Amino acid sequence: MQESYIHIEFDQERTLQDQVKEHLVALILNGKLPATEPLPSSRRMAGMLKVSRNTIVLIYEQLVDAGYLISKPRCGYYVAPAFANPEMLLGDDAASDATPVQWQRRFCIRPGNERNIVKPNNWASFEYPFIYGQVQHEFFPIEQWRDCARKTLHERWSRHWIDDRVDTDDPMLIEQLRTRLLPRRGIYAEASEILVTIGTQNSLYLLANLLCRPGVKVGLEDPGFRDARNIFATFGADLHLQEVDDAGLVVDQRLEDCDYLYLTPSHQVPTGAVLSAARRKALLQMAEQHDTVLIEDDYDAEINMQDNPTPALKAMDRNSRVVYIGSMSKSISPGLRIGFMVADEELINEARSLRRLMYRHPPANNQRQLALFLSQGYYDAYLRKIRELYRSKLERMVQGVEHYLPGMLGGSVSSGATSLWLRAPNGIDSEALAWRAAKQSVLIEPGGIHFAGEQPPANYFRMGFSAIAAHKITPGIQTLAGCFE
Amino acid sequence: MQESYIHIEFDQERTLQDQVKEHLVALILNGKLPATEPLPSSRRMAGMLKVSRNTIVLIYEQLVDAGYLISKPRCGYYVAPAFANPEMLLGDDAASDATPVQWQRRFCIRPGNERNIVKPNNWASFEYPFIYGQVQHEFFPIEQWRDCARKTLHERWSRHWIDDRVDTDDPMLIEQLRTRLLPRRGIYAEASEILVTIGTQNSLYLLANLLCRPGVKVGLEDPGFRDARNIFATFGADLHLQEVDDAGLVVDQRLEDCDYLYLTPSHQVPTGAVLSAARRKALLQMAEQHDTVLIEDDYDAEINMQDNPTPALKAMDRNSRVVYIGSMSKSISPGLRIGFMVADEELINEARSLRRLMYRHPPANNQRQLALFLSQGYYDAYLRKIRELYRSKLERMVQGVEHYLPGMLGGSVSSGATSLWLRAPNGIDSEALAWRAAKQSVLIEPGGIHFAGEQPPANYFRMGFSAIAAHKITPGIQTLAGCFE
Repeated sequence: MQESYIHIEFDQERTLQDQVKEHLVALILNGKLPATEPLPSSRRMAGMLKVSRNTIVLIYEQLVDAGYLISKPRCGYYVAPAFANPEMLLGDDAASDATPVQWQRRFCIRPGNERNIVKPNNWASFEYPFIYGQVQHEFFPIEQWRDCARKTLHERWSRHWIDDRVDTDDPMLIEQLRTRLLPRRGIYAEASEILVTIGTQNSLYLLANLLCRPGVKVGLEDPGFRDARNIFATFGADLHLQEVDDAGLVVDQRLEDCDYLYLTPSHQVPTGAVLSAARRKALLQMAEQHDTVLIEDDYDAEINMQDNPTPALKAMDRNSRVVYIGSMSKSISPGLRIGFMVADEELINEARSLRRLMYRHPPANNQRQLALFLSQGYYDAYLRKIRELYRSKLERMVQGVEHYLPGMLGGSVSSGATSLWLRAPNGIDSEALAWRAAKQSVLIEPGGIHFAGEQPPANYFRMGFSAIAAHKITPGIQTLAGCFE
Repeated sequence: MQESYIHIEFDQERTLQDQVKEHLVALILNGKLPATEPLPSSRRMAGMLKVSRNTIVLIYEQLVDAGYLISKPRCGYYVAPAFANPEMLLGDDAASDATPVQWQRRFCIRPGNERNIVKPNNWASFEYPFIYGQVQHEFFPIEQWRDCARKTLHERWSRHWIDDRVDTDDPMLIEQLRTRLLPRRGIYAEASEILVTIGTQNSLYLLANLLCRPGVKVGLEDPGFRDARNIFATFGADLHLQEVDDAGLVVDQRLEDCDYLYLTPSHQVPTGAVLSAARRKALLQMAEQHDTVLIEDDYDAEINMQDNPTPALKAMDRNSRVVYIGSMSKSISPGLRIGFMVADEELINEARSLRRLMYRHPPANNQRQLALFLSQGYYDAYLRKIRELYRSKLERMVQGVEHYLPGMLGGSVSSGATSLWLRAPNGIDSEALAWRAAKQSVLIEPGGIHFAGEQPPANYFRMGFSAIAAHKITPGIQTLAGCFE
């Protein structure tokens, strides 16, 4: 009897209507409801599921409209003939005694063997999640984003995102990036010098794929952004690791033979140091003299809340020697995966061809939604709010660390960051500390992964504060301090 | 005087309110409205722009709510102090006499030099667009897709798409693919054997990146999918081109030393041939004996409207020797860029690590929206509709070709395709034909690009019918016939 299938464990996340409809659709498509019998009456179904009869009537009518059910007068609702037979095909599950594929021998690169930053995906269940790179959901401007989705998904605009764009981007988004975002960093670019990507890592991947092979020398910061190092290593580039101090990347003659230099001048990953004006100038001169291309990752520029922000390195670049990479991951949401790259048109053209091969273009609906989010002023209004929020969080962070973890704050605190880089006393192992802290529901990130050497210093750790609620910061640091004993 | 800035060329695509708001936000953010003077009154502004006063009142209030404006009693609206100074920074535009970067010497691969299928991006303005790979906007289930967007963008669900998912996919989408889509092709897979990608090309790119280098032999269909050939060539694989006939790829001993074989068994690209049952069996046996991995591109499986569809090759694969690739580009929209890959868990794990490097994960909002679109039954209801549509279009296509272009229909017509592959008489150059047709507003695709040889046959062409309206098909073919003279 079909009624035995009709049992639903409702969850709290969604409306009863959605869940009942989903269940009935699944039963129909899986062929669990015989076409020869009517469905239970709306009254009976409502009683079985303990939902209102109106809900059931509405769902039955929706399923008639969609073609799943037909209504026979005085008999009730039946599964429509078109859906009477499930479309499932039989698989061939006969056992096999053949030799399995030796995948390990076939892999030409081994990205799975790279060391990665590991973050618990249950971070939201921690009481004090000092995690980097995630955001507080409750501050996401969801109403405004929904408004942009609604407008984008209007018939009038559908042609902007339904079609295959082949290798082009949404011109409205390019215009917003060009006239709205980039000038804030002192960058004035033509549309042909901008390429939209699926986030900063994707920009780096395109560049490494295009420009690197064994024998090409790439300079990187140490400590630095682990994923960048893994990406350049994937294409066999010769890596040169250069140290970092309180004024950012150390600029000296060891960088002179680099073909490329990847750096995070606005807020060094992970230390937060800002590259000094003197070093910026020296770096650009050196790049010119030794034909080095600089890859500037300005990953959190948009939430920089300094009153007199330093322009991007790209703003000082007179000769298309700087490739600029930005993203919306820190300012809006990392889940949407939207980034961009600004560079010489010749490089952008070739990167566009590579992108066409790799995935054609970033999803067009998200491009248009973001363009609208910018043009309708939602983005800038939101930025003002979260900059305020991060400014006040940073104050609490610094005060808390100075009080409970005295002496651990290394160097200058960069005002635009969403994390602090801490140095525990020698002899403290931050991996062990992180485990002890986790037991107290405090999440911190051990810092060893950011160093290149085989024996990285064990006593550094990072505390992000973009995801933790402001009022949790001080008690979180206090609890962490208790884990040092 | 600021009022000189207030002039808008309205377009028909969007509401006046959106356009006025966008214009005012741009003026404020660009510092064009002095903070010392009030904005024109709503009455005056409405008169200047010739829109209703209510519209202006509403926009002013929205801009107050967003923090752009402040309202001073009895004085009017002013730009808020927080927005009084534009954030633009000055760039350094001094001229430079330094040597420019020699990009050409730096490129390690040259994707821009590959021959590509070129499609006019103004295809929608053709009267008879027989273009392949685009869809008719008016049939897109936009109301249902919007409903899914609205539900996804509810606060209750935001955590599913705001966060960085690192290397994971939306479990709800994986479940829908696993239990709803794949069984229709006879494929029963575990969640760990499925990876979501940014479309079919992205699946191929991940595979080629992971598995190919010089010395690795990849078999391809000739004629075949150009982008696949370009992707495998990018990683230096040795390509073997194998011919195709009415029963699909010719299976013989020349394929025996291939490490990989890329094929489109359900509907061969571009001929539409279906790989015969005998060849499928022979191919799987050969693959087993000679340790070949088969890469099955089932690109349009979902709109296959045969009554007894052939299961995927993957359904007969007893030993994880087939990598299955699918996408939603043909069935829903190519602009959304959603595809997936099903293979041995060991391969999927490594591909997932590579994807994590390449772009972390496909945008999470689109994953959830699609999952909902499937689970709420919108997808299957829509499929039934477009299958009917394509069935009737195919009939018109075949009738039109048989009547106006007799003898040009090559081999068997595959019922699941959205294009026909035509062979004009010898001596006809389909490139020249396409130009003549374009002048009559008929868009067809010359077929030479699909062949691998230096001197491809000139007389083949493809006519897609997914984007052209049904009633345009017959007159379009008639017009095309006139271009042969």
